[in-house]
Amino acid sequence: MINTDTRQVETLSVVKMDDEVCAKVQDQVAIEEPLEIQVTYSSPTGRLQKAVAITMRTPGYDEELAAGFLFTEGVIKNLDAIESFKQSKADQNQVQVILKENIIPELQQASRQFYTTSSCGICGKASIEAIKVPAQFENGKKEFIIDASVVYSLSGSMSKAQSIFHQTGGLHAAALFSLGGTLMMLREDIGRHNAVDKIIGASYLSGALPSDESILFLSGRAGFELIQKAAMAGIPVVVAVGAPSSLAVEMANEAGITLIGFLRGTRFNIYSGKQRIRIS
Amino acid sequence: MINTDTRQVETLSVVKMDDEVCAKVQDQVAIEEPLEIQVTYSSPTGRLQKAVAITMRTPGYDEELAAGFLFTEGVIKNLDAIESFKQSKADQNQVQVILKENIIPELQQASRQFYTTSSCGICGKASIEAIKVPAQFENGKKEFIIDASVVYSLSGSMSKAQSIFHQTGGLHAAALFSLGGTLMMLREDIGRHNAVDKIIGASYLSGALPSDESILFLSGRAGFELIQKAAMAGIPVVVAVGAPSSLAVEMANEAGITLIGFLRGTRFNIYSGKQRIRIS
Repeated sequence: MINTDTRQVETLSVVKMDDEVCAKVQDQVAIEEPLEIQVTYSSPTGRLQKAVAITMRTPGYDEELAAGFLFTEGVIKNLDAIESFKQSKADQNQVQVILKENIIPELQQASRQFYTTSSCGICGKASIEAIKVPAQFENGKKEFIIDASVVYSLSGSMSKAQSIFHQTGGLHAAALFSLGGTLMMLREDIGRHNAVDKIIGASYLSGALPSDESILFLSGRAGFELIQKAAMAGIPVVVAVGAPSSLAVEMANEAGITLIGFLRGTRFNIYSGKQRIRIS
Repeated sequence: MINTDTRQVETLSVVKMDDEVCAKVQDQVAIEEPLEIQVTYSSPTGRLQKAVAITMRTPGYDEELAAGFLFTEGVIKNLDAIESFKQSKADQNQVQVILKENIIPELQQASRQFYTTSSCGICGKASIEAIKVPAQFENGKKEFIIDASVVYSLSGSMSKAQSIFHQTGGLHAAALFSLGGTLMMLREDIGRHNAVDKIIGASYLSGALPSDESILFLSGRAGFELIQKAAMAGIPVVVAVGAPSSLAVEMANEAGITLIGFLRGTRFNIYSGKQRIRIS
């Protein structure tokens, strides 16, 4: 499940100190590089090409990242808006998303979203209402029950599957599980938002949206816009190893998302949508 | 050192699962709210007021955050550019930075920087050269020696001083230590970049820049633009509990910053500038 085509880690010469013992060793760090996302689309005056965003990401799955970013940020709304991608071998830090003939991207939305991608964090409007992107799926309507034992099992399945993190300690992971707890997809990135965009982009490109029968697993904290992205993809359950923020809980309540935080072994906290979790 | 005037945590009703035992308890989450940073400055046509950025932050120390953001992102270059601040009691999510009569903000820089604030991560130019902001201090020229035992002691000093993190688990911390290991300032925020901006903003406002005799401590990972911000403030040593990225190491090498990662007890890795660390 890890992309082996692209370099995600870099080997460096490092001085390792261990209780006053000092050694020069080879160590691995996660690669961080900028990716410029461009869209190409039709206008009355012909085909146009615009740079929409640049994100600091770990290389790999760049097409999924671009698709996921454009969809979760509301730049493309249609579920089949993308015709193809172009990424030159020479400049891997640029990906061109070519939209279908009749698709007009919401570039206003994009420029607004430059700001809303926070945690970093920069966002576009001072009111919380204004930073929300309207979702097209109704996560809250989905009724089902997940056994607490399924929630417990998620961390274990993740650690088995994660490879890069163990090498560098520097990557965030996001994963999509079935409601029964089967790992369906795993992505790792230096940016938490990128890992989620890669997951949702993959679902988008394979025609699997809404992801309304799946659990989004986050290796770290759950901030506002990770929940926002889950809502955009119609994901009804988000489980995080770390803490949620106040705004994340608010957003999850509104979108009808079950939000679980602080998953550690057989412990976790349910912040919203507890009716979907069964304690046996 | 924690701002007690402003609410940084919110108490929520949460379902806590602990090994199949389920309880409804009161739990605390870190508050995440948008802050719009505006600048007011003189132009040939009179005083102008412009929104420069909006960041998702934990309320508190908003003036320091605004000052630190504007300085580390290159919007203001002078060390005494700020006349005063305005923040209305009614709308705490907006802060107005009023510049002195003769100061012209680099707003181009600002709009570029909307993109460069990554880890989230959105950045402005596809080339690494282009995302760098030129620093005015020369960190690399600073010569001194820090004993490894000082590095070991930083985590301990931090945990003693941190209060919010223990309540919510959801905040990042940044701290400024003297070269001898004395804690001088601590800030916590939902966003790693905000915590660092608050630190550097405080130094800016108290006329203490460059911070060339201090160590910046980060509770998490060290990404590219945290090192960039340290370089802007003239900070010569950065110590992180988490991993650095490839670009962070590159930036630290270039700026002459000593970069230490993975600090755990008496273990750490030196990624750059090892000549400043003495192993006894």
